[in-house]
Amino acid sequence: MLRQAFHEFRIATRGRGLYDFTAQAASWLAAERCRNGLLTLLARHTSASLLLQENADPDVQRDLEAFFTRLVPDGDRLFIHTAEGDDDMPAHIRTALTTVNLSIPVSGGALMLGTWQGIYLWEHRQTPHARRVAAHYLGE
Amino acid sequence: MLRQAFHEFRIATRGRGLYDFTAQAASWLAAERCRNGLLTLLARHTSASLLLQENADPDVQRDLEAFFTRLVPDGDRLFIHTAEGDDDMPAHIRTALTTVNLSIPVSGGALMLGTWQGIYLWEHRQTPHARRVAAHYLGE
Amino acid sequence: MLRQAFHEFRIATRGRGLYDFTAQAASWLAAERCRNGLLTLLARHTSASLLLQENADPDVQRDLEAFFTRLVPDGDRLFIHTAEGDDDMPAHIRTALTTVNLSIPVSGGALMLGTWQGIYLWEHRQTPHARRVAAHYLGE
Repeated sequence: MLRQAFHEFRIATRGRGLYDFTAQAASWLAAERCRNGLLTLLARHTSASLLLQENADPDVQRDLEAFFTRLVPDGDRLFIHTAEGDDDMPAHIRTALTTVNLSIPVSGGALMLGTWQGIYLWEHRQTPHARRVAAHYLGE
Repeated sequence: MLRQAFHEFRIATRGRGLYDFTAQAASWLAAERCRNGLLTLLARHTSASLLLQENADPDVQRDLEAFFTRLVPDGDRLFIHTAEGDDDMPAHIRTALTTVNLSIPVSGGALMLGTWQGIYLWEHRQTPHARRVAAHYLGE
Repeated sequence: MLRQAFHEFRIATRGRGLYDFTAQAASWLAAERCRNGLLTLLARHTSASLLLQENADPDVQRDLEAFFTRLVPDGDRLFIHTAEGDDDMPAHIRTALTTVNLSIPVSGGALMLGTWQGIYLWEHRQTPHARRVAAHYLGE
């Protein structure tokens, strides 16, 4: 019997960086008794994104951050939208270069992620923010 | 009662830039009496993408364009696929760097977007094009 | 009558490059008698991604590769996560810059892709790998 469930994850960030919320997503699926279906996530922001990335070696996250900081430098004089500071426009661009959407099949109650994949919110602003991720489940 | 609906949005572009079609998407959902479910969009092109981005300050769009123009310069001599002009291969790369897919939960008849998120088609070619975005709805 | 189907595509890569698996996806939909619905794909890796791109001129793939190789150079001294070689961290970054997720509407048994769109797995590592792509179908 197919059915839907809706939720919103709240993630309090401490500034720029990756925040793993795989466990929160798995807990919600368990509480809703989701067995086989599809989980869709949407970050409701234009300066934070979603990412499936390596959850083993923390150096990967350090290097991801280093690369994006070099690619989209804070305070670049190319930008005119600087009302909220040097990291404002870079945060929008980093969000456009990654994604705000993920859709993950669920089988036997488990997220069908790869062995090394964790679900991250990527905060692109330097200051702490309260982030919201809409969740939709459709399945059995 | 779960059901599906299909549609294709037509967007006539006037060349490179962002085209907001949030209102068109909302109108279609209303016409189909979609209440709670999931809207999936797919740009059926390799030189135009979809983007959820800031709909308040137009400077954000100007800066997004400025950044991508610098990152993927038209006429870059790295490229050999130039049959359709200087902007041909950059349009493919800009599409690969962003996305052609969006999935947005719908609750109480409303798209669960963030306050500042609008749905845009990003035309990456310099000349006007007729773009098509496939839409799929599943829900109540 | 709405129903679900699950699958996992196996793609054996010969190292970095694009691997078209559109025909495999279409074959699976036909075998499952999928008519109208939504196909969702997820690459279960952090160093390979999914891409809808031009399937006509092979120069497009050559230029995509050339651009990403210049943008994210193998052996860049910025990176400290180099345990698996010079292409290890660049593979993670190329994956983050593109996507591991695709959702494609299906109508009348056919994928609603554009004329020039093929479904590719993009292998970002230099050596051959066995890649897995989770597939979920929901529809009639």
